[in-house]
Amino acid sequence: MTLTHQPTHQPTARATAGATLLGLLARDLAPDRLTTDPAATAAYATDRSGARPDGQPMAVVHAVHADDVRTTLRHAHALRVPVVPRGAGTGLSGGAAAAEGSLVLDLGRMNRITELSPDDQLAVVEPGVITAELDRAAAEHGLRYAPDPASAALSTIGGNIATNAGGLRCAKYGVTRDSVLGLDAVLADGTPLRTGRRTVKGVTGYDLTALLTGSEGTLGVITAATVRLRPIPVATATLAAYFATFAEAAAGATALTAARIEPALAELLDGPVLAAIDDAHGTGLRGRGAALLLVQCDGAGAAAEAARAAEVLRGRATSVEVTADPEEARELFAARRLALPSLERLGRPLIEDIAVPRSRLAEAVREIETIAARHAVPVHTLAHAADGNLHPILVIDPALPEVPEAAWAAASDIFATALRLGGTLTGEHGVGTLKRRWLAAELGPESVALHHRLKEAFDPHGILNPGKAI
Amino acid sequence: MTLTHQPTHQPTARATAGATLLGLLARDLAPDRLTTDPAATAAYATDRSGARPDGQPMAVVHAVHADDVRTTLRHAHALRVPVVPRGAGTGLSGGAAAAEGSLVLDLGRMNRITELSPDDQLAVVEPGVITAELDRAAAEHGLRYAPDPASAALSTIGGNIATNAGGLRCAKYGVTRDSVLGLDAVLADGTPLRTGRRTVKGVTGYDLTALLTGSEGTLGVITAATVRLRPIPVATATLAAYFATFAEAAAGATALTAARIEPALAELLDGPVLAAIDDAHGTGLRGRGAALLLVQCDGAGAAAEAARAAEVLRGRATSVEVTADPEEARELFAARRLALPSLERLGRPLIEDIAVPRSRLAEAVREIETIAARHAVPVHTLAHAADGNLHPILVIDPALPEVPEAAWAAASDIFATALRLGGTLTGEHGVGTLKRRWLAAELGPESVALHHRLKEAFDPHGILNPGKAI
Repeated sequence: MTLTHQPTHQPTARATAGATLLGLLARDLAPDRLTTDPAATAAYATDRSGARPDGQPMAVVHAVHADDVRTTLRHAHALRVPVVPRGAGTGLSGGAAAAEGSLVLDLGRMNRITELSPDDQLAVVEPGVITAELDRAAAEHGLRYAPDPASAALSTIGGNIATNAGGLRCAKYGVTRDSVLGLDAVLADGTPLRTGRRTVKGVTGYDLTALLTGSEGTLGVITAATVRLRPIPVATATLAAYFATFAEAAAGATALTAARIEPALAELLDGPVLAAIDDAHGTGLRGRGAALLLVQCDGAGAAAEAARAAEVLRGRATSVEVTADPEEARELFAARRLALPSLERLGRPLIEDIAVPRSRLAEAVREIETIAARHAVPVHTLAHAADGNLHPILVIDPALPEVPEAAWAAASDIFATALRLGGTLTGEHGVGTLKRRWLAAELGPESVALHHRLKEAFDPHGILNPGKAI
Repeated sequence: MTLTHQPTHQPTARATAGATLLGLLARDLAPDRLTTDPAATAAYATDRSGARPDGQPMAVVHAVHADDVRTTLRHAHALRVPVVPRGAGTGLSGGAAAAEGSLVLDLGRMNRITELSPDDQLAVVEPGVITAELDRAAAEHGLRYAPDPASAALSTIGGNIATNAGGLRCAKYGVTRDSVLGLDAVLADGTPLRTGRRTVKGVTGYDLTALLTGSEGTLGVITAATVRLRPIPVATATLAAYFATFAEAAAGATALTAARIEPALAELLDGPVLAAIDDAHGTGLRGRGAALLLVQCDGAGAAAEAARAAEVLRGRATSVEVTADPEEARELFAARRLALPSLERLGRPLIEDIAVPRSRLAEAVREIETIAARHAVPVHTLAHAADGNLHPILVIDPALPEVPEAAWAAASDIFATALRLGGTLTGEHGVGTLKRRWLAAELGPESVALHHRLKEAFDPHGILNPGKAI
């Protein structure tokens, strides 16, 4: 079964098919669309995860219109050549890494916001639109695009949809899927497909929009998306609380849930992260506690909700500060913004991404600490606490040629912990290539078999992003 | 292609297969599970839509455990006998109507809430749990199940998931899909499938949870659901505004969106509905205006938000009342509760269910009025205004043996209007049998073909609810 999802050419036949494809693309696409220069294609072998398959892609198509996508896929399908769709390449799981002999379909130039309707609170965008650009355009009308992955300033809407990207505000505003109303996509054989609609409700047919969202480029290539926009909240209030231990901070986050407070975001930073920020920026955060919980409430009741949150945390935290002033809030959140850059100074961060039921957050944190000690691998943890999504970050010595075995062993134990606690091995980054070996442990054999049947229904020759996601 | 989705037996072979199946089920199921008495099975031929296929089902299996579902499907699959899954039979599109020779799989006895976790704000329920029962159980912990279809007191969670049911609070809290975290299902051949998880975030594998949700029993039979619960809002504030015309009321609802107010619900009743309530209950609603808009805001900022809403509406409405008192709110909402029962006194209501982009609400309303006049068919309209979901209700003379051609012609024009305005032919009720003939007009041929390939991947012999939804 799996074989049908990998182009089955032998090496020589593959080279011939590749050469034929390049000839057809050179004939049928405008001259500026195709790049075969190895110096230019080399960068497409990997993405921000650093995952690197064998070899590098033979060419890159820079699509400008949906027609370029259709033409490319029609020919690649006929010739059984693998195609790797790509946005900005900011993925953290190797989903856009392109192996030897593959063709990259770069959607970065399809970056127009073709409609922004304040009345319907929606936008129609091409896949290469940078997420933060859409949010900025919406802000001119008092609206925002709610999903806010940490990569928003760099990543594209198409990539966000392909991975069903999360972000900081998901607990209250949902993940990317919850903001996608409809899609224009191209199937593997070049057939155009339209899913969903311009309305917030609608149940005609199967939910193909949700099925394509998060499918990591294995089911179709997105050429346009109709996304929901939401009003910018009329007010926000921000809270920062330091705790003596990370476990107490995690328990504090759980206590907010138990008190039925629904923060827009609740970010948790552990002691090692605070220390890394101090080292990088000369701040004194670690001296204030071994963990920091940042909470933001929004909407007309923001101040009241933040005051209730402060009350819940006051007995548990070593200090609690609350502010409704945007500038002070920015300062409180500086630690969160500085966290990843500070860790990147120490080495190559391998960012894990488990999620657990919210009540198991403190337990997950204790397990991660035990795992780090057992494998003698330092682990720094950030968490989107309001939705139980933890990012244990393993910092790899940049002098090492590849990720050491101890780090993989620690990651493997972390995944096992997530599954044991009723969670998942990826909350928001996707499976890509890096988490594929643990996939069956989470899904089970029946689901894996069904995934492959669905893949066949969309992409019978298995040309779309083979070896990824499923 | 379509043929493969309908069991292809000739009548005699079908009768033999049916008899064989009944023998196997009598052997393998506990004695209280199987009903073949025609007097008992007759009621299963239809659902609340009144849609009535040819003949009636040959038997009903009353499943008590997931094993009953697996056994039933395994045998039915082997013998190619059509199976119609059923909850409470409150569907409005004929999705649960069971034709001659089919087997009904009634899930009503699988009605246990097997877990309710306040800490994780989730519940695990069997499909036969009545939606309002779950909400009541959640309320004991200060939580609620957000989706609130009008049928909540009668309908089951399984049926709600099968149709991706909407309700009044969808604009703020989403539809059923947005509250379903994971499912246990049984595929057509009896294979158990688990989808999703207990966490609010998670992107491992394709979104099979969303794909099953709204698939109207054509892809699998749900045997358990893990659903999200949310805190009961700390406060609510309610507003009632009367308008001189329905178009002005619709414009008022649009003005709330433009003012970036996010009500938990916004219900619109037109003049004919108000008159029907007056006739049934001796009230004087129609005298106060030709349309009523009911708005509820909730959360810590409810009162402030309702006050802003009142400000927006005051120049447009003939009267605006606001209250934060729950008893007064109940009184304001009485009209909405009485609407459908009042219409049912006039005849058999054929409840349509289009949705349009919110900015087209007033235009949709004007078109519906024109269509009603053109076909001389009285149309009463209720709308979930905050999400553009309109219920034009055609009241059919109960003396007529079937729906008259003029009513179908009016419905057809209403669907065409919805599609022309960028909307959908069903916002929340599903396609069932009643809307199937308009399906291709909304989805397009490429999508319809893909739907059938997906159906095959789940149900290769086409035994699950044939002739419905797709």
